Amino acid sequence: MSDFDQKCINTIRFLAVDAVQKANSGHPGLPMGAAPMAYVLWTRFLKHNPRDPKWADRDRFILSAGHGSMLLYALLYLTGYDVPMEQLQLFRQWDSITPGHPEYGLTPGVETTTGPLGQGFTNGVGMGIAEQYLGAMFNTGEQPIVDHYTYAIVSDGDLMEGITHEAASLAGHLKLGKLIYLYDNNHISIEGSTSLAFTEDVGMRFEAYGWHVLRVEDGNDLDAIEQAIRAAQAVTDRPSLIVVTTTIGYGSPNKAGTSEVHGSPLGADEVQRTKEALGWPLEPTFYVPDDVLAFFRQAVERGAAWQQGWQENWTQWAARNPALGQQWQQMMSDELPDGWEADLPIFEPGDKPIATRNASSKVINAIARHFPGFVGGSADLDPSTKTYQKDYPSFQADERSGRNLHFGVREHGMGGIANGMAVHGGLIPYTGTFLVFSDYMRPSIRLAAISEFPTIFIFSHDSIGLGEDGPTHQPIEQIMSLRLIPHLEVYRPADANETAAAWRCAMQNRDRATVLLLTRQNVPVLDPAGILEGVEHGAYVLAEADGGQPEIVLIATGSEVHLALDAQKLLTGQGVRARVVSMPSWERFEIQPEDYRNSVLPPGVPRIAVEAGITTGWQKWVGSTENIVGINRFGASAPYKEIYQQLKLTPQYIAELAQGLLTRA
Amino acid sequence: MSDFDQKCINTIRFLAVDAVQKANSGHPGLPMGAAPMAYVLWTRFLKHNPRDPKWADRDRFILSAGHGSMLLYALLYLTGYDVPMEQLQLFRQWDSITPGHPEYGLTPGVETTTGPLGQGFTNGVGMGIAEQYLGAMFNTGEQPIVDHYTYAIVSDGDLMEGITHEAASLAGHLKLGKLIYLYDNNHISIEGSTSLAFTEDVGMRFEAYGWHVLRVEDGNDLDAIEQAIRAAQAVTDRPSLIVVTTTIGYGSPNKAGTSEVHGSPLGADEVQRTKEALGWPLEPTFYVPDDVLAFFRQAVERGAAWQQGWQENWTQWAARNPALGQQWQQMMSDELPDGWEADLPIFEPGDKPIATRNASSKVINAIARHFPGFVGGSADLDPSTKTYQKDYPSFQADERSGRNLHFGVREHGMGGIANGMAVHGGLIPYTGTFLVFSDYMRPSIRLAAISEFPTIFIFSHDSIGLGEDGPTHQPIEQIMSLRLIPHLEVYRPADANETAAAWRCAMQNRDRATVLLLTRQNVPVLDPAGILEGVEHGAYVLAEADGGQPEIVLIATGSEVHLALDAQKLLTGQGVRARVVSMPSWERFEIQPEDYRNSVLPPGVPRIAVEAGITTGWQKWVGSTENIVGINRFGASAPYKEIYQQLKLTPQYIAELAQGLLTRA
Repeated sequence: MSDFDQKCINTIRFLAVDAVQKANSGHPGLPMGAAPMAYVLWTRFLKHNPRDPKWADRDRFILSAGHGSMLLYALLYLTGYDVPMEQLQLFRQWDSITPGHPEYGLTPGVETTTGPLGQGFTNGVGMGIAEQYLGAMFNTGEQPIVDHYTYAIVSDGDLMEGITHEAASLAGHLKLGKLIYLYDNNHISIEGSTSLAFTEDVGMRFEAYGWHVLRVEDGNDLDAIEQAIRAAQAVTDRPSLIVVTTTIGYGSPNKAGTSEVHGSPLGADEVQRTKEALGWPLEPTFYVPDDVLAFFRQAVERGAAWQQGWQENWTQWAARNPALGQQWQQMMSDELPDGWEADLPIFEPGDKPIATRNASSKVINAIARHFPGFVGGSADLDPSTKTYQKDYPSFQADERSGRNLHFGVREHGMGGIANGMAVHGGLIPYTGTFLVFSDYMRPSIRLAAISEFPTIFIFSHDSIGLGEDGPTHQPIEQIMSLRLIPHLEVYRPADANETAAAWRCAMQNRDRATVLLLTRQNVPVLDPAGILEGVEHGAYVLAEADGGQPEIVLIATGSEVHLALDAQKLLTGQGVRARVVSMPSWERFEIQPEDYRNSVLPPGVPRIAVEAGITTGWQKWVGSTENIVGINRFGASAPYKEIYQQLKLTPQYIAELAQGLLTRA
Repeated sequence: MSDFDQKCINTIRFLAVDAVQKANSGHPGLPMGAAPMAYVLWTRFLKHNPRDPKWADRDRFILSAGHGSMLLYALLYLTGYDVPMEQLQLFRQWDSITPGHPEYGLTPGVETTTGPLGQGFTNGVGMGIAEQYLGAMFNTGEQPIVDHYTYAIVSDGDLMEGITHEAASLAGHLKLGKLIYLYDNNHISIEGSTSLAFTEDVGMRFEAYGWHVLRVEDGNDLDAIEQAIRAAQAVTDRPSLIVVTTTIGYGSPNKAGTSEVHGSPLGADEVQRTKEALGWPLEPTFYVPDDVLAFFRQAVERGAAWQQGWQENWTQWAARNPALGQQWQQMMSDELPDGWEADLPIFEPGDKPIATRNASSKVINAIARHFPGFVGGSADLDPSTKTYQKDYPSFQADERSGRNLHFGVREHGMGGIANGMAVHGGLIPYTGTFLVFSDYMRPSIRLAAISEFPTIFIFSHDSIGLGEDGPTHQPIEQIMSLRLIPHLEVYRPADANETAAAWRCAMQNRDRATVLLLTRQNVPVLDPAGILEGVEHGAYVLAEADGGQPEIVLIATGSEVHLALDAQKLLTGQGVRARVVSMPSWERFEIQPEDYRNSVLPPGVPRIAVEAGITTGWQKWVGSTENIVGINRFGASAPYKEIYQQLKLTPQYIAELAQGLLTRA
């Protein structure tokens, strides 16, 4: 490697070392070891425009090993993103744009939120799917409109996590040839050598997935890295994993190659020794030689030229393909197309009872006809989740315009992949599985919420109402535990019309993730009048008490709304004026003005909540645990109507409870 | 295959077919396809005693593909477990012992709860670890005391799930040669052919993990299956995966080999056609030929003889090794040894502040000295979770008496493996990672709760108090969402002494799983007087209001207890009598008599709750959201004291809130 290359690489290394030292917190080891591969990738390959981090056809770069965040922040600063030096010096401080782990939306150039291991790796698979899907739609000319790579630096930790197994297996199946992942094989994890727990043959494993596996034996050999990336680019029908052997904390005389350098500052003495060892000036800290900065900053000019060339091609292409050009602009706008809701179904109370998963299926198929950016699938459950778009094919290696993804029995991978599709741009992705298996993908749901990705998570079989499959498959705590995730919007619609309304809200949520909870069992259809507005408000008066002026309010969600309606009838017969409130979304209701909330839940009127789930949490709306009809145990295997009876989720029990409350009051 | 073998296998198939048909719900396809391999395993290999399903040295059999539960129930009935024919006929009915998916503790002979895919596979790895660990301890004679296989039937779905990647990689690393897994390779999952999503080379992948991989091309070739199992037994330094090609729904003329037969009854017509095709009488249903039953029931006699032989060996061995014999009896008793708590630390208020993770470390090391059944580890975080037993080595392929498990960055696998260790018998296992990563292993925590496994889940870094790592690593909703899981006991101790007390409770929880939530940051040490009793009650008066008769009660958990104590001081200075209640465990407090609960939380006295987590749920104890000091957003990357300040988790804010409440009241 040339002295100048060395100088550039050491600049990255010591920006990381100094920032971690100044913050007295962070992970210097990865940036020190992986700086050479990052340098090669960013200066010799990465197609990006630092002055327009949102340019649609940029290559994506993911630091899946998000703990090495200073590597990324250093590159963003050096190549001219809006990440100034002061921010590097504010690493890990309140209100900085350089947090401990990269956060999407906070820092220009950060393509996705990483840190929880395996997620970035998996997001990249989603980006690769999005690229291929959009390419199939728009690449009609000689020069493609969509033609970018998705690169990542991944770590031992990523590859140990189950989610990357799921994502890698699917990526191999789908032959995503434009994924190029560099594996920072430094043989060290937090407890020590990877020989303690991680001795599998990673390369062989990835070959078994159908990946193209390359090896670079010396992570400081820039030419070997460059050749490997070129070889990876040359193989277009398989994703590539480049196994790069590195030394964690490279350059530190006493700590390189040890777990000590993974997650702690080097310490002032070792910083000095490392700078001495690598021939770096001790002062100033955060030192960036002028020629190094000038070299990296060529990315600005190069990026502008790339984007300009792309834009010219796009303009010519759009002139020849005006309809596609409009389609492109629409899909990249992050807005919904005009008329997207034209075919949304309206259900009539006279219709046969219908499971909300089936109502959802009609909605999905209605949206699909008007919006080609609507792409999703299920974790091997589409006959049950009803998430298949019937008019369109499956997305496969030989069918890139397919809109239905077969994720396989890979819930966690599905979540992370959908997040990658959501953040790529151009698509609104959705996922499908049973509600109880939301637990398998919870880390990805949380990251969608943190990152404000507009992923739509569909969960059917949302209660004991699934019946015979029993307690392992019956959600109890899941409805509430999803509500606990900040910035996530959860809907549990009561019928087909609320389902359509919830879907409208989900589609319009462009900066947050949405969860839709759907029944397996049939439920009656409610009068559609007022339902859309009601759902948009999160909760609404579905059935006023006979004669108004309720003595008691029955709040329910999902399938239990119908129990509440039946209880209301019983109470009416007993001379009690009960109001039924359907509350499909807590999050929406909470942000309504107090007036509206009081109009739905009048202060001073006792309330009962009914939901086939854990009761903890409902005290928020009804005050006392005694006023909640729910389930504080695991479910049971039996026909579902029997389970409802046995667990006292019945109109009779609700009415009795109401009578008891009113008597005591 | 002989006609008689065929008859035995068809008996299994049609018990499954008829039970699913009668229940009008269930999964006939797997039992029909996998009956031959199960038959070979159960009649030619499996060392078990149907009349003593708890015999310590039995081979373990796991149906990881739990949806095929009727396969297992049929085998249990046929071989003479206490699973009578009537129960097969009550398949999937309320109060039966034959639920939709196998549930541990409900059905004699069911070794673990399965259904959520990948969990059984992973539990088996834990059983294999337990077997090796106990073997190293007790196999001092010529004939071993602990010497059993762990067998499983696993499915495509299991192998797609990330958790099995984690478990398989670790099992290969640990060279668990007595794991023998039969992979029911039927090429069909719910959405259709596995070619839709699952085309990896499974055998090659498992070879990459260090497994011994065998193939049986015809799942009806009993001799080939037998030879493969023998070959698997002969390889003792690698786990074995036998890839058996089968036909799902074998025998069904119209549905075999299709996804239709996976999860639905065949239907009356197809049942008839299938019986005709396989030469089975149409009536009676649930037909078991006498000679078939007699043949299977030989398992009773064989099992008795096996166990008797083992017992005789054990008796002689124990006579020669009385100390070890006593040790064995103690460890298999599911009770704690006398004196296990002898060295539990007591911390003094004069001690330096200490993080509860560090206090926990002292407890772990104190217990370890007195209880060799105490085995655990961390998902590559032991320097942070402080879960290492310092006086003992790591468990490795060449060190089977090691007590420290290096799980690698495999949280989900860790949870499932620990559950397998817990249910094996002889051990009390624990796990360790950061609280935010509890999300990665939530399905295993839930299964521990359902199954009443005494697994202890340790989660450190239990709040924004972890500081700079930022929102991806800061738990917000996790404390509450763990509390939502039925039958799980969650502790969030306030200091070192509460930590020791919580550990006592956890160790004494022999029929439930326990979660311990621990701080990264140091917290002051409380006076140990009364703390054990207080923690055992779940909540207690930690600091009475000055002069008694509190005007307000401040409830807090974990590190926030110290904020409440400081707020109490501020309020005292302002002339307000505030009581501080520490509430380390909701679950324990909820089961206390009403008198006790009222003595801690006097009715009518306003309350404020303080916890560095989501507020939803705390209304249960304080009534209104306005009375909760918590965090309804994601965290932030900064030094932790600054985050506490910025998010208003301060004594000043608590005191202000209290004053406001009292003014309004």
